[in-house]
Amino acid sequence: MPIPASLNHLIDALRILPGVGPKSAARMAFHLVQRDQRGALQLAHALENALGTLKHCRQCNTFTELDICEICLDEQRNHAQLCVVEMPTDLMSIEQTRSYEGLYFVLMGRLSPLDGIGPNDIALKQLLERASNGIVTEVVLATNFTTEGEATAHYVAEMLRARGLQVSRIARGLPVGGELEHVDPGTLAQALIERRRV
Amino acid sequence: MPIPASLNHLIDALRILPGVGPKSAARMAFHLVQRDQRGALQLAHALENALGTLKHCRQCNTFTELDICEICLDEQRNHAQLCVVEMPTDLMSIEQTRSYEGLYFVLMGRLSPLDGIGPNDIALKQLLERASNGIVTEVVLATNFTTEGEATAHYVAEMLRARGLQVSRIARGLPVGGELEHVDPGTLAQALIERRRV
Ligand SMILES: [Zn+2]
Ligand SMILES: [Zn+2]
Repeated sequence: MPIPASLNHLIDALRILPGVGPKSAARMAFHLVQRDQRGALQLAHALENALGTLKHCRQCNTFTELDICEICLDEQRNHAQLCVVEMPTDLMSIEQTRSYEGLYFVLMGRLSPLDGIGPNDIALKQLLERASNGIVTEVVLATNFTTEGEATAHYVAEMLRARGLQVSRIARGLPVGGELEHVDPGTLAQALIERRRV
Repeated sequence: MPIPASLNHLIDALRILPGVGPKSAARMAFHLVQRDQRGALQLAHALENALGTLKHCRQCNTFTELDICEICLDEQRNHAQLCVVEMPTDLMSIEQTRSYEGLYFVLMGRLSPLDGIGPNDIALKQLLERASNGIVTEVVLATNFTTEGEATAHYVAEMLRARGLQVSRIARGLPVGGELEHVDPGTLAQALIERRRV
């Protein structure tokens, strides 16, 4: 059957989902229009709603629907400690360990010269301002242990040490090349405890 | 991190995709908002567009953006032969075998008393009209070989034989309980060739 153009576009659009190849994209598209049109419409609206309402916390840069996120507003947490991660999912991984009580800063990326991502392309300037507020005394670098994450940690460490801040790096309890998102909470908790000053 | 509500809704909405559990829905949601907001918006639009433009062919009931689909309009095909399938994906499976030159009728479902789906809930009345146009002489039943598909084939056969039409069933070359969508084109081609009058 000549597949209607709008269905073909839908199959193409579904390919952006992680782990979805051409065959499963087609299966998903047909499922959506054949068997669950209401669910499909809800998905479209949920996507638009999420993209429309999610913004970045003015303090830590993570996704939130507020101006300042709930973690940054939490008086119970240690506001002198700042943990730097690449992405909001990394922040969530650390929160799941329940072993960290400080605040966060989310870079929304990492340095990656090969992809043309330099210091001005991630939130380094914002991090510098954030860490220089006079309250933060220690910055814990929790970028991934990939080449890019390590380069980012190195760059951030230099930048913040020049401001007189104490900078530490979570321990390499993670496997080399590992990403926070895919590690078990126990290992990640250990890595937090064993962080070393850099 | 307390996940923002709009992100939680997106995770829920993604669960309607076939084969997507809670973990991969979360991974997909974060991927969409963190790394591919443009792709996410395109997906939302593709969904709305597909749902908005796809309609049912007035002759064969399959999905199309036209009033009458390209297969039904094709003068080269055998308009005296009508193959009845459950879903548009089944039609596609048969087209892929390149062994059938007649037209189709898509029920958009199957009889399933246990789910409360009776003769009035699928396009049987429309099929009866379509098959009684004076041009169709043979109807090939290609519903699935599941309990519901067999019951549907039986019901349709009775209904159409009563109108003097020749009715056949594709051969049970498919494994029992098998669905057209998951069978290789060769087996399906064989099943079409070996169809038997019922
Ligand atoms: Zn925040
Ligand atoms: Zn048609």
